Formats: sequence, structure tokens, C-alpha cells
Amino acid sequence: MSNIREVAKLAGVSVATVSRALSHPEKVSQASIDKVMKAIEQTNYKPNMLARNFRSTRSYSIVVLVPEISNPFFALLIRSIEIHAQAKGYSVLLGDTQDSQEREKSYIDLVETHLADGIIQLRPHTAEYPVHANPQFPYINLCGTEDTPGKCIRIDNVKACKAMVNYLLDLGHKRIGLITGLKGNPHTIDRLRGYREALEESGIKFDQKYIAEGEYTIWSGVNAADQLCELDELPTAIVCMNDEMAIGALQSFKAHGLRIPDDISVTGFDNIDYSSYCDPPLTTIAQPAEEMGKIAVDSLIKLIEGGALTHEEHVLDYEFITRKSTAAPSNGD
Amino acid sequence: MSNIREVAKLAGVSVATVSRALSHPEKVSQASIDKVMKAIEQTNYKPNMLARNFRSTRSYSIVVLVPEISNPFFALLIRSIEIHAQAKGYSVLLGDTQDSQEREKSYIDLVETHLADGIIQLRPHTAEYPVHANPQFPYINLCGTEDTPGKCIRIDNVKACKAMVNYLLDLGHKRIGLITGLKGNPHTIDRLRGYREALEESGIKFDQKYIAEGEYTIWSGVNAADQLCELDELPTAIVCMNDEMAIGALQSFKAHGLRIPDDISVTGFDNIDYSSYCDPPLTTIAQPAEEMGKIAVDSLIKLIEGGALTHEEHVLDYEFITRKSTAAPSNGD
Repeated sequence: MSNIREVAKLAGVSVATVSRALSHPEKVSQASIDKVMKAIEQTNYKPNMLARNFRSTRSYSIVVLVPEISNPFFALLIRSIEIHAQAKGYSVLLGDTQDSQEREKSYIDLVETHLADGIIQLRPHTAEYPVHANPQFPYINLCGTEDTPGKCIRIDNVKACKAMVNYLLDLGHKRIGLITGLKGNPHTIDRLRGYREALEESGIKFDQKYIAEGEYTIWSGVNAADQLCELDELPTAIVCMNDEMAIGALQSFKAHGLRIPDDISVTGFDNIDYSSYCDPPLTTIAQPAEEMGKIAVDSLIKLIEGGALTHEEHVLDYEFITRKSTAAPSNGD
Repeated sequence: MSNIREVAKLAGVSVATVSRALSHPEKVSQASIDKVMKAIEQTNYKPNMLARNFRSTRSYSIVVLVPEISNPFFALLIRSIEIHAQAKGYSVLLGDTQDSQEREKSYIDLVETHLADGIIQLRPHTAEYPVHANPQFPYINLCGTEDTPGKCIRIDNVKACKAMVNYLLDLGHKRIGLITGLKGNPHTIDRLRGYREALEESGIKFDQKYIAEGEYTIWSGVNAADQLCELDELPTAIVCMNDEMAIGALQSFKAHGLRIPDDISVTGFDNIDYSSYCDPPLTTIAQPAEEMGKIAVDSLIKLIEGGALTHEEHVLDYEFITRKSTAAPSNGD
């Protein structure tokens, strides 16, 4: 995003002239206006057009960037964000970014042109994130991981996944498989670390053959579970990095004639609505979506209003939910 | 939304002067500019600010209005809209309206100020819809019903629900219950009509005691099914007006010790992903979400580009999907 100084430089006029050309063109020569407008087009500079003639520079809307709109966990967060934003007089625009940086940029433009006031990001982070170059940009990350840069609200994913594996170890499981999300995803990295740490601390060797890669969708859970079913010796429990993959895994295992939890325990992550309606209902980790949404909105509005946050990072507690998809291994495994 | 004529009247200047004050202020006196700006503030007139200084008046973004973002059927439509919009160079902004007309209005403002180019609406209709006053407003309804006004893409909900009831009648069911959405919802009205017509045509009297009202959520399906379980004589089949309520109903019936489909058949509507992962998988109606999204995008862009549509209304075929939640009544009922 270019700024007014670059425009002035290219137009060969002062910054004050650019500003006047935009706010009081009647005080500037037509020749200067022409030069400024040409430079604006060339630099793709986006002046705060709406604010120019209206008293308030606030649009009272915030943008929520969502990597994948059909993910029900994001729906829980969005619901909370909307309730709290609305209570404070803000409307919410959702940008489904489908993990495209280019699309994220177009939503960031909405804030840079003052058509929205700030951004809540539901993707942990991207490699080069334009908003981090500008600490004044009102921006909160709501699904952070260990290495999310900037202002961030999250749970401890390492600890949560570790707790899940420890729970299965305590039940007596020794061969614990894992269905991961995509390898490079920051949540995958943190949760995999939790899985490894729990195994290592209990003296069980990490075994790559018990790991199957999914992509956080139901279908990918089916495929990953199908793949694990080809092992000579099946794990007695499978940790899935989200509920959707666990729901897919349940179906695959049942199709292979396995009873859950008698033959194999299955766990999820997120506590989406469907996790208590599948058969059997899933043991899972609930993130405090309601509280996360509230803190995100409160923090973002504070930033929009020019305030500072007392904490850059909020690490909230998760809840461990035990349902019927887990039990002790039945055959003394 | 006020227009330029109202601004001119209030400012006591001509429409041409208002226009010039906005596009070439250097050609207008400061006194006129002051009067015009004051009138703009008072009337809340929103001139096309971004277009004023840039060549294109196109923002290349479209707004999709979603009544409830956590509904997985809407997620299917949104996915299709995004794929087709992106292919045509348009980005998509989602407005979660939570059925509030006031919130819809704020999204319509985005188009009126040329920050977006058009709207795809996923709610069948609202009583007084501002966009219908302006036939030039690029606007498509994508979840229409029998009485949706204006340009609309839909399936025949009456026929689809009738087909579901006829299927159950053909299996031998005579006592067929219904879990509806909220009474006033246009989809509820159409689907209820289909249910009544099927019963009447087969000589079965409509009986209010077999109808339970839900609100298109899982929880409401649980509650509605609990309510039906209090009947002295239970229906042998239950038609649910969407899959989520059917998934809730499955759980309620199982909790009451009923086997599905042996003791009671259950059907859904929409074919969301989870409908094939619940236990048993649901017999349901699939709307052609992919095709609907494509037609909506193509039609809207045609309107944005100033073209006309050959059809005001597209009524698409649905698909009947038979899975394991339905069977003939077992006890000769």
C-alpha cells in the first residue's frame, strides 16, 4: 500500500498539495490536481475517500477473515464475534479467504480505505503479513498458535493435544494413532508437538506409521482412517486433530467392521455441534469460542479507538469433554 | 437512501451544481460547496466516492447476504458462489444478517455507495424489501420460494416435500409426522403445503397433533422429536424440514429407545455433509447447490454489466437421495 508521500514524490508536488488536492481541490491548480490524480492511479494510493467529506472517520464495521466458511468451529467463533460486535454498535463483514493471501489483501484494503475499521483474523498466520508492518493497523488474531506474531487470542494447542494423548495413555492405550491436518498448518504443528511430547514422556517411541495426514475435512478423515486400517496391527486409539476428521474416521472404522470404542477409541478437537450427535458422540477438546469472540471484539474496538492492549496475547483455558467414543482397550493391548 | 435531487433541493442549488461540487469542485464557489456538503450530511446522501477519482466504477466484489452463517446448507451455496465469482474476477463479501432487516440495509449501502457491485440474497424474502423499489439494483435471490418477489433461483419446495411424503406412503406408512421450521418462514410454508397435498391426495386426513415446530437447528429437532414421543400413538415416519433437525430427531428417538428405521423412519432435507455421516445416514432431498451458485453468479454479473436476464426465475431440479434412515413400517402399522 503506497502512502501520500509516494504520491507527492511521483507527482512532483508537496505532501500538503496532495492533501489539499483531495480535501480542498478548489485551493489547488488544475495542473496540480491532474498530476496528483495521475500519481494516485499509478501508485494505487487509496485515500480515505469516505471520511473526506463526512464528520466521522469510523465505518463501524469490522472484517472477519475466515479461511474456510464451511468449518463449523469458525461458525461458532463468528457467532460470538457478531453478538459482541453488534452489542457495541459494529456490523461484521466476513471475508472467506480460502487461504489465499491475495484475497486477504483485498479485505485489508477495506480497512486501509476506511470502509471497515479493523480485522479479526481466524487463520493463525501467513508467512509475510502486510498488517504486521503497521502496528497501528487494528488487527487481532483469534486462532493463534505458538508462533503467531502480533496480537493474538488462543488456547494452548500443544497442551490440549498432550492432555488428550495422556488421557488415552491413562486408559491403558499404548498404540495411539494420529490423524493430522495438513503438514504446514500451524495448528497441525502445535498439536503434533503435544502428541509427541505425551508419548515421549511416557516412554513410548513415536512411530511415523501411526500418523495419517488429513486436511481438517470429513472426507479427509475417512481417507486417513482407511489408510490406518491397512496396518498389520491397528492402533487401539486414534487422536484426530479436529472433530470433522474424527466424524469421518468413525464412519471408516465402522465400515471396516470395528466397534467404537470397544475395538478402537476415537477423539476429536473443537467440540462442534455435530460432535455430540455422531455415533458414538465424541470425546473432544472444547475451545472457549464464546469467550474468545468476546475478547477479540473488545480488544479490536480498543485498538480502533486508539487505545492500547494490556496483553498482546491471551491464552485461554480449553475444556476436556469425555463422551462415548473412548474407553480402555478391551483386549489387554 | 436519499438521492442527488434531495441534496440539491435542500442546498438550494441545481442538481448540476451538486454534481460539479463533487466531481469538479474547482469549478464551483466555496459557498456552494459548503451548502452542498451540509445538505449531504443532513440527507445522509452517499455519493459514489470511490468512483469519483478513479476510472472504473466497478469494485469487482459482490455481497452475499446469509441469514445464519452456521447453517451448513448455506455453506454449500457460498462455496459455489465463491468459486464461480472468483473465476470471473469478483471477490465475495459475506453479510451475516441474522434475519435483521436493519443489518441487511447496511450491506445494501455497500452497493449503493459502489463499494460492492451487487447482492445475492440467501433469505427467501422480507416483507418490505428496499431493493425491489429499484429494478436497476443488481440483486438475485438464491433460496427462493413460491412467493419470492423479483429475480430468483430455487427448487420447487412444495414438490420436493410432497415427493418425500409420497415415498413414505409408498413404503406403507400411514401415520407420518412432520418437524417444521418456524411457522412464518417461507420454506416452512412451501414444504408444509407439499406435506398436506401428499396426504390429502392419498386420502389421509391432516392431523395437527403429528406436527411439531422446530427452527431449523439440531437442538430444535431434538425438542420437536421429544414432543412427538409424548403421543400415545407415535407416527411410523417423521419428515423433517431440514437435515439438522433430522439429526437432532435421530438422537431423541434413539434416547427414547426407538430403532431407526425399524421403529421409526426419519427423513431430512438439503443433503448437508453430515447427513451421510449420522447414524443411520439420512434419506434426504439434495438441492443443486453447485448449479444454483453458478447461475446466481452468472445472472448477477449480467445485471451488474447492465444486461437483462432471459428468465426472472430459475426453478431447478432437486435430487432424491435414499439412505438407511427409512424403511417400510415393521409392525404392519
